[in-house]
Amino acid sequence: MSQTWAISGVDLHLDLRGSRVRGALETSLRDAVKGGRLQPGTRLPPSRTLATDLGISRNTVAAAYAQLVAEGWLEARQGSGTRVAAHPARRPVGDRTQPDPPAPPRFDLRAGAPDVASFPRAEWIASARRALRDAPAAVFGYGEVRGRRELREAVAEYLARARGVDVTPDRVVVCAGFTDGLRVLGLALRAGGASTVAVEGYGHRLHREIVAAAGLDVVTVGVDDDGAAVDGLGGADAAVLTPAHQFPLGSVLTSERRLRAIEWARAGGRMLIEDDYDGEFRYDRQPVGALQALAPDHVVYAGTASKSLAPGMRLGWLVVPSRLLDAVLEQRVLGGAPSTIDQIALADFLRSGAYDRHVRRARLAYRRRRDRLLAALPGLRVRGAAAGLHVVVELPPEMTEREAVDRAHRHGVFVEPLSAYGAGDHFPALVVGYGTPPEHAFTTAVARLAAALTA
Amino acid sequence: MSQTWAISGVDLHLDLRGSRVRGALETSLRDAVKGGRLQPGTRLPPSRTLATDLGISRNTVAAAYAQLVAEGWLEARQGSGTRVAAHPARRPVGDRTQPDPPAPPRFDLRAGAPDVASFPRAEWIASARRALRDAPAAVFGYGEVRGRRELREAVAEYLARARGVDVTPDRVVVCAGFTDGLRVLGLALRAGGASTVAVEGYGHRLHREIVAAAGLDVVTVGVDDDGAAVDGLGGADAAVLTPAHQFPLGSVLTSERRLRAIEWARAGGRMLIEDDYDGEFRYDRQPVGALQALAPDHVVYAGTASKSLAPGMRLGWLVVPSRLLDAVLEQRVLGGAPSTIDQIALADFLRSGAYDRHVRRARLAYRRRRDRLLAALPGLRVRGAAAGLHVVVELPPEMTEREAVDRAHRHGVFVEPLSAYGAGDHFPALVVGYGTPPEHAFTTAVARLAAALTA
Repeated sequence: MSQTWAISGVDLHLDLRGSRVRGALETSLRDAVKGGRLQPGTRLPPSRTLATDLGISRNTVAAAYAQLVAEGWLEARQGSGTRVAAHPARRPVGDRTQPDPPAPPRFDLRAGAPDVASFPRAEWIASARRALRDAPAAVFGYGEVRGRRELREAVAEYLARARGVDVTPDRVVVCAGFTDGLRVLGLALRAGGASTVAVEGYGHRLHREIVAAAGLDVVTVGVDDDGAAVDGLGGADAAVLTPAHQFPLGSVLTSERRLRAIEWARAGGRMLIEDDYDGEFRYDRQPVGALQALAPDHVVYAGTASKSLAPGMRLGWLVVPSRLLDAVLEQRVLGGAPSTIDQIALADFLRSGAYDRHVRRARLAYRRRRDRLLAALPGLRVRGAAAGLHVVVELPPEMTEREAVDRAHRHGVFVEPLSAYGAGDHFPALVVGYGTPPEHAFTTAVARLAAALTA
Repeated sequence: MSQTWAISGVDLHLDLRGSRVRGALETSLRDAVKGGRLQPGTRLPPSRTLATDLGISRNTVAAAYAQLVAEGWLEARQGSGTRVAAHPARRPVGDRTQPDPPAPPRFDLRAGAPDVASFPRAEWIASARRALRDAPAAVFGYGEVRGRRELREAVAEYLARARGVDVTPDRVVVCAGFTDGLRVLGLALRAGGASTVAVEGYGHRLHREIVAAAGLDVVTVGVDDDGAAVDGLGGADAAVLTPAHQFPLGSVLTSERRLRAIEWARAGGRMLIEDDYDGEFRYDRQPVGALQALAPDHVVYAGTASKSLAPGMRLGWLVVPSRLLDAVLEQRVLGGAPSTIDQIALADFLRSGAYDRHVRRARLAYRRRRDRLLAALPGLRVRGAAAGLHVVVELPPEMTEREAVDRAHRHGVFVEPLSAYGAGDHFPALVVGYGTPPEHAFTTAVARLAAALTA
């Protein structure tokens, strides 16, 4: 979800999730015209285009445009779209009398992304330079379907050491982040005759869409403090789980349920997909090892650099049981593999120790952030705080999710309700991510959230 | 098609296309054991794994293993797979009496890849460093679905200037090479109700597989000296064409056929997909502009860095008509987008002029190679030589394709028959790529091919 966009080369900053999207869009455009950054006559993108670009509804964009036309900042002409008004200073006098809309939220406490400002640019470019200098020319050609051997060996070494994964380099398949991996797995399972995949009742909507797009029926299982209720997996052919840190509820799949999930898979020749999205970030106890190690023939381990390094890198890896490997590679050959240059850069980054150093630094920083967040919310029950980059904050009595989100927005904070991630029978809560704000903004962001929930 | 692979970290070089795959594999393994690079006891990958890795049949690998076990180089034990023999020097005496198999072909004249040894490493890393240094932190986050604006603007500027494409940055969709773009287009067309896509009767088998994997029926149209026989497009809902340089026959789609293809598309609300895979490389006349410019609402333009820079980069771009854009972005969001870091690096590479410089250098180098190739084959008719990185060489009277390929292999040259790219009613010919060999090997490669076809 990009928050920076551009019209005619002018960058506009915009925070668009939450309930005040239209107001945020109006303010952003109005300020850009007022401040002269968008010059008179500049053509705005069609409402449909902008809506697609920003991931919001076309009606919202059309309404914002209409409001700004009414205010005199924009002009709409039949057949030539919407432009910045020729003389936007001559706006209707009435405009002055309207109260200014509230400023869009400035602090992003949504879950799902790390602190991208801490991306180790210098170390990454050093790895890329070394890797490019030393690489055989074949790196620039069409690569091995499963990914460059350098990277598969480095990933295998790392996963065995850091996550206890049962892995050999030949069973590692490089992919463009978890979504690409899930897509390829879904298609491979479907090709093998699977028809139904179970997912956790709380999670990313996009993951369900990817499974469904592979032609599979999606069913859900409940989630509680012990993780996914694996007894409900029933007749599904495969299941996608987040055993180390349920997303977003934060619970850890108990040992007993791990064993039952594996029994389920073994009994029916089924497949478990372990989404280990933030396994590196665990604070208060020993890391929970990968489920995959208990049954390497029945679990696909899926890891990603999206949380540990940067989502924009689009690099992830699957460890695939031998019996599913051919089917996965058949789908992999049909496109979507990441750049081999990035693959050798990441291999160097892993091998040189830069990855470990970065993860250690990040773990320390996120742990401090978590502690500051918990200290700022003393009266509220917080779940899932032992790991990861987000927590679930239960709301004070009689405060609804909608009310809490609106209050946070009025305090300048973007945050999402738990209901955005599922429709189960849950307590009213917010999902609060603490990875995203840059360091300098974190204290203020947390203070404002606390004020919103306690004032 | 990787030609370098590794067992236990030992790199083995292997050329595997063509008719002597098994012999090549045996030789490669035998030499590695003989030379001590593969140590006694080293475990070989399971035959299925190696077959998948190399893209050859499992039977071929199993037969090669069996032969080497018979020769005493390898040992097979029940339950523990195949290993390098403990004492490979004590091979059966009989081995000495067998004639050495012919050496595997050393020169690769297959079509479809550029000279990867000429990849501009220093300039690329300079662009990556500049781009990383100056980028806003948002680059490292989940990016815009259609790709980074910096890259879409640079691509739009380049395509309008170099290929005459009718393009705005908002209609550019970044993809991971042409295969990823074709996959996304196929799914978008299917979601919009399309059921049949026409492809040219000669082309890449993988492209047909990708279209079919999107749930579309694939039909073919004939190809002749005027390009695709577009009158045969009939009732298809869309067609994939290579108008600038038919792959692999090399003909240019005539003006008259361009207009008829567009009439076909307009009349039925259909879509043309213009695969402009090597539009940068044209030698003897003015570049043929993009078909897309004639009907931007009915043609998707698809370009790639795979031929102009390197296939391993997995970077390409679509220019999508507005009416198809939403459907394409809906598929794009489901995964497979390339790294945003690569995107800003390529944007810098385009903007800094490094791309133009590289293409000019490469064009000159490939033109010289083409001239040397043509000069070496004086008695043979050569087609499609005005552009691209390959030609079609008609065979001398009474020489079959199979015979020509075998003769070339015996001269150490990998080359493919025209029939590898289609099953039409064609003249016997070879498809000879002149991009792949490194510069120092090119003269010998061409001389050997000439010897094979004329001796």
